[in-house]
Amino acid sequence: MRIFVDAFGGDNAPLAAIQGAADAVAKFGHTVVLCGDEQAIRACAEENGVSMNGIEICHTADVLTMDDEPKSILKEHKNSSMGVGLQALAAGEGDAFVTAGSSGAVLMGATFIVKRIAGVSRPAFASVLPSDTKPFLLLDMGANAECRPEMLLQFARMGALYMSQVIKQGETVTVGLLNNGVEEHKGGELQQQAYQLLKESELNFIGNVEARQVPFGAADVVVADGFSGNVLLKTMEGTADMLLKNIKQVFKTNLLTIIGGLLVKPYLGSLKKKMSASAHGGAPILGVRKTVIKAHGNADRVAFMNAIRVAAEAAEADIPARIAAAMATKTEGEA
Amino acid sequence: MRIFVDAFGGDNAPLAAIQGAADAVAKFGHTVVLCGDEQAIRACAEENGVSMNGIEICHTADVLTMDDEPKSILKEHKNSSMGVGLQALAAGEGDAFVTAGSSGAVLMGATFIVKRIAGVSRPAFASVLPSDTKPFLLLDMGANAECRPEMLLQFARMGALYMSQVIKQGETVTVGLLNNGVEEHKGGELQQQAYQLLKESELNFIGNVEARQVPFGAADVVVADGFSGNVLLKTMEGTADMLLKNIKQVFKTNLLTIIGGLLVKPYLGSLKKKMSASAHGGAPILGVRKTVIKAHGNADRVAFMNAIRVAAEAAEADIPARIAAAMATKTEGEA
Repeated sequence: MRIFVDAFGGDNAPLAAIQGAADAVAKFGHTVVLCGDEQAIRACAEENGVSMNGIEICHTADVLTMDDEPKSILKEHKNSSMGVGLQALAAGEGDAFVTAGSSGAVLMGATFIVKRIAGVSRPAFASVLPSDTKPFLLLDMGANAECRPEMLLQFARMGALYMSQVIKQGETVTVGLLNNGVEEHKGGELQQQAYQLLKESELNFIGNVEARQVPFGAADVVVADGFSGNVLLKTMEGTADMLLKNIKQVFKTNLLTIIGGLLVKPYLGSLKKKMSASAHGGAPILGVRKTVIKAHGNADRVAFMNAIRVAAEAAEADIPARIAAAMATKTEGEA
Repeated sequence: MRIFVDAFGGDNAPLAAIQGAADAVAKFGHTVVLCGDEQAIRACAEENGVSMNGIEICHTADVLTMDDEPKSILKEHKNSSMGVGLQALAAGEGDAFVTAGSSGAVLMGATFIVKRIAGVSRPAFASVLPSDTKPFLLLDMGANAECRPEMLLQFARMGALYMSQVIKQGETVTVGLLNNGVEEHKGGELQQQAYQLLKESELNFIGNVEARQVPFGAADVVVADGFSGNVLLKTMEGTADMLLKNIKQVFKTNLLTIIGGLLVKPYLGSLKKKMSASAHGGAPILGVRKTVIKAHGNADRVAFMNAIRVAAEAAEADIPARIAAAMATKTEGEA
């Protein structure tokens, strides 16, 4: 697989991207093409002793920053490290694209450079998140603040394909609708109508799931409009960070708690690992013609490596083609 | 103050309600009227050695359960322990009403028995929640799944009054709008229009707040539609419960972690206290003519006592009359 990676996206660019690329080459044998300033990339690699074996560079000097308008990816910054990567992908020069840069820009670029799959109303941001029992896929998590019921059905279909094929090795997955209660009549018009569409669909729909149950693994795929999906995702992150910060402070109270902390610390690692979202490679943009993965803005070396691994797996499983096939069948069948 | 309490609402009824009532009488000198089956209440009090001094009983045999339709509070179950309490409140026999029973039913009853304040479009469920730095008020947290921008402005005004007068002893409070980004143009139409209304209002509006920052205390009052407010609240609860469950398991790994846990445990209490929502007395229904407080379904003795305390404080501060005055001024001013 040939994966394009934006070397200048995210808080830890370009080092984390270069290291993650090197690790992915060494571990999985993929070809990685780093997009960005060639001189800066080579200098950074050399300075940090990262091998550039198996890594190609697609040179461009421009960078799209977090302060740039998302739509600038189509014009002023079309030749940014993100822009050239997306163009190369669209032109068939690679199998997938990974960036930790601006979410708005990569969504805009994926939609208008890589382009939507026929039949898809709106591409969705999906994210594989940790839960108490198993990882789950949440979508949409912010691409579409306002949704129609049919969009939620499409999100469910795209999400179920991704989750089943990329994360669950072909297993059937459960789909739940995020709602403010489990009863069928709960929520607003959007949820009530989406409920009926999901219930009548071919999906393994288990009904409404409450936000309270989502961190416990209520469903393999949790479907929501982009606004409440975003609230769910960010609240999980914020609450976990806030609690862990406070627990760390408890460990620092006095000598006894410091000793207590030292005794427990080695075993907190496995919990931290279980709760880490980066193991699952970040957020795929589903509904566009090629695999595009958005890594977290604070992605480190491991997160980049995992994002590249998952991007290759999604491309290998040909998720975009499967989504296209599903959309074609469903649109016909339902028309 | 004379507070009516539904003795048969919640998972721990009637004992927790009776204990909480006795504690509130002893500690704050309020008169508490327990609504429910007199014989059952007296038997439960005697069996558990709870003093009934200063506690009156408003007898009724019927109970509205979690399985009953919310609207049954107006008809089949109008003589339930919840129904008679709300009727007594509406008739001016008391200053406030507290229940840990069905949210839907108490909202319905508050709206149609106690009745809306003139000028209020829709009453809102508010809740005082813990954050890293200070408690904050979230509303609406589920009464109105679908909202118009003007409703969010009303929620903000009602919430700011409650937070300032009941929780913050008259301090000015900050108001934030829950959104999927901090920029002014973020969110859907609802958030964009509500932003403008809030910006032009007399409130101390600090702009959009992201769900990520809410657990860190982003604003004193966080305004949201009932659907995303509910997602925020439930995700905070679910994520915290899930993490604490996992951390408890880490403490049980082996002898060293058990010892570590014992050393740390005494100091986790203060964190638990900080994170406890029950200290702030549960969820007021704002926008109705008298003070109605919904305690958490799993409210224990302490939670009931605090709910009664806060109900009395809100009644003392005459929050409903202040809201009525604010609505009258604003409606005139804006017409």
